[in-house]
Amino acid sequence: MTTSNHNPYTLGLDQNAANYVPLSPLSFISRAADVYPNRTAVVHSGGVRRTWLETFNRCKQLASALTKRGIGKGDTVAVMAPNLPEVFEAHFGVPATGAVLNALNIRLDAEAIAFILQHGEAKVVIVDREFSEVIQRAVRMMAHKPLVIDIDDPSYEGGELIGTMDYEAFIAEGDVDYAWELPENEWDAITLNYTSGTTGDPKGVVYHHRGAYLNAMSNIVSWGMGHHPVYLWTLPMFHCNGWCFPWAIAASVGVSVCLRHVRADMIYNLIKQEKVNHFCGAPIVLNMLNNADDELKAGIDHEVKVMTAGAAPPAAVIEGMERMGFKVTHVYGLTETYGPSVVCAWHDEWDEKNT
Amino acid sequence: MTTSNHNPYTLGLDQNAANYVPLSPLSFISRAADVYPNRTAVVHSGGVRRTWLETFNRCKQLASALTKRGIGKGDTVAVMAPNLPEVFEAHFGVPATGAVLNALNIRLDAEAIAFILQHGEAKVVIVDREFSEVIQRAVRMMAHKPLVIDIDDPSYEGGELIGTMDYEAFIAEGDVDYAWELPENEWDAITLNYTSGTTGDPKGVVYHHRGAYLNAMSNIVSWGMGHHPVYLWTLPMFHCNGWCFPWAIAASVGVSVCLRHVRADMIYNLIKQEKVNHFCGAPIVLNMLNNADDELKAGIDHEVKVMTAGAAPPAAVIEGMERMGFKVTHVYGLTETYGPSVVCAWHDEWDEKNT
Repeated sequence: MTTSNHNPYTLGLDQNAANYVPLSPLSFISRAADVYPNRTAVVHSGGVRRTWLETFNRCKQLASALTKRGIGKGDTVAVMAPNLPEVFEAHFGVPATGAVLNALNIRLDAEAIAFILQHGEAKVVIVDREFSEVIQRAVRMMAHKPLVIDIDDPSYEGGELIGTMDYEAFIAEGDVDYAWELPENEWDAITLNYTSGTTGDPKGVVYHHRGAYLNAMSNIVSWGMGHHPVYLWTLPMFHCNGWCFPWAIAASVGVSVCLRHVRADMIYNLIKQEKVNHFCGAPIVLNMLNNADDELKAGIDHEVKVMTAGAAPPAAVIEGMERMGFKVTHVYGLTETYGPSVVCAWHDEWDEKNT
Repeated sequence: MTTSNHNPYTLGLDQNAANYVPLSPLSFISRAADVYPNRTAVVHSGGVRRTWLETFNRCKQLASALTKRGIGKGDTVAVMAPNLPEVFEAHFGVPATGAVLNALNIRLDAEAIAFILQHGEAKVVIVDREFSEVIQRAVRMMAHKPLVIDIDDPSYEGGELIGTMDYEAFIAEGDVDYAWELPENEWDAITLNYTSGTTGDPKGVVYHHRGAYLNAMSNIVSWGMGHHPVYLWTLPMFHCNGWCFPWAIAASVGVSVCLRHVRADMIYNLIKQEKVNHFCGAPIVLNMLNNADDELKAGIDHEVKVMTAGAAPPAAVIEGMERMGFKVTHVYGLTETYGPSVVCAWHDEWDEKNT
């Protein structure tokens, strides 16, 4: 970047320059594991509590195992699961191979899933037992069968294992010394998300590494997240990649508190047990929390920030949340914009109007 | 970004895509003025207190006035002044024209300044009275005389007005309706900073819009600055563009508290009067503050974050700062890296060792 020529700024420094570093959220997790190896990264029911180093190693193993199976640049790896540690890991381990993560909407039926898997040309599908039946039916409709890997998560009873092997056995094939590299080009695809298909077949929306990086940074700055947030996964990771929060949590070296089912008792208990201070959700989630038993609501003595998107929640819901000490930020976005693209930036004078 | 083709992520979306938005800190100030027009942006002695709308309008007038004088892409505009509102404005108004800001080290002599102005091919020099003599001597050595504009700031007595006109008259020629546009390419130059020349002639280092944008965001994230910081300008804006903080303050819609001379009494008074909660400085500044009279130190009842760079300050200085409730973050950088490129990321267990 230095020069002693005249007109030094006519260098035309660009993407082809020797010191070009692509913007990619893959850099966030390697930095988190390097600087804060022993900080908690992921918490899940059943006593799962992994550090950033452990989580990063699992991501490297996932990337390595996928690579050994021939997965690489331009391939698609799909996942059908609730907000489990494995989905968080897939947000890093899949793109580290050059492949693209396709997180599937767990509410879709086998026909819609089959359409998406075929359209996205998924070569691997990672599926939780809760959704193995719908995946089994979808895969039967596909001409080119993907490799199916089961997530055998103890927090769900029932459902069959339908895959070639389970996720733990799969990543055990992988190498923790996997070379973690950023993409050559920041405009390379990182994920593939499908719209809900309300106006026809679902449409594929491609996120690139650059956009994922910038949206993650923007989440931190616009929400004032600070360092080491404790983030509860009420918002589905399949929904615009959880509004890019897997990457924002890695960038801020926070904690991902996983959650299989969005239920008021679980949410309140985790807020109290894990001192959760950030979560996202649709207005209906806020409504559910607001209508919960007073007993559940009692005992929260720290500030909790809530990000909600879509139509503004009713005033009564916001009031109820604020009475509990929850600070609500309203945002808006859509699949095509990675997640929140419009934020209600609070004005101090609005506080005065409430008094 | 959407597609319904197969292999949807092989779009090769890149800088030439229709929806490409360049990364530029010029977007921060237009957003600040749009969303928070009435929040305070700049405070200066003598009762100067301007909002973001007022500051943005002055930046647009500066850009417009420069454009009317023929300044545009590839031209250099130099400034020689302490941390005044005009230098803050130049960080936005100059690059908005496509030109490049060259903020001069006010400690240099006429010979070094003449070398830099000629090497950088400055077409305009904006100079404060405190430094008009050195600029006058430097300009006499130049074959191609730049347009000289005076800053006639009441906070300094003495010094001559040496220019064609003063800054206020100059920007009065400009239009507040100036079309504020981002650069075509984020790799375009935004500023030109010269190294100290300890190993020969000063060397020019070019910053681009992309780097300035990313460093500003990184300052906010790595320092956990939150929304609306009140930032005191103890660190020179000519030094790596104040480590990119003019842009970070615009991005976080904070307050720039200007400061002509780095003196303990002024700093403590401004911290108390303006509720300053962020400032940067070399270890020597911290040392000076630590050795100040207890009377000056008394009466600060809010948290103040201090960023210091270079060699680590002595333990006694850090201890003294912490006793006052100042939270010190140590960073390192150099002109070639925009500013802080290494940050001491605090570990909670270090607190425990102090008890």
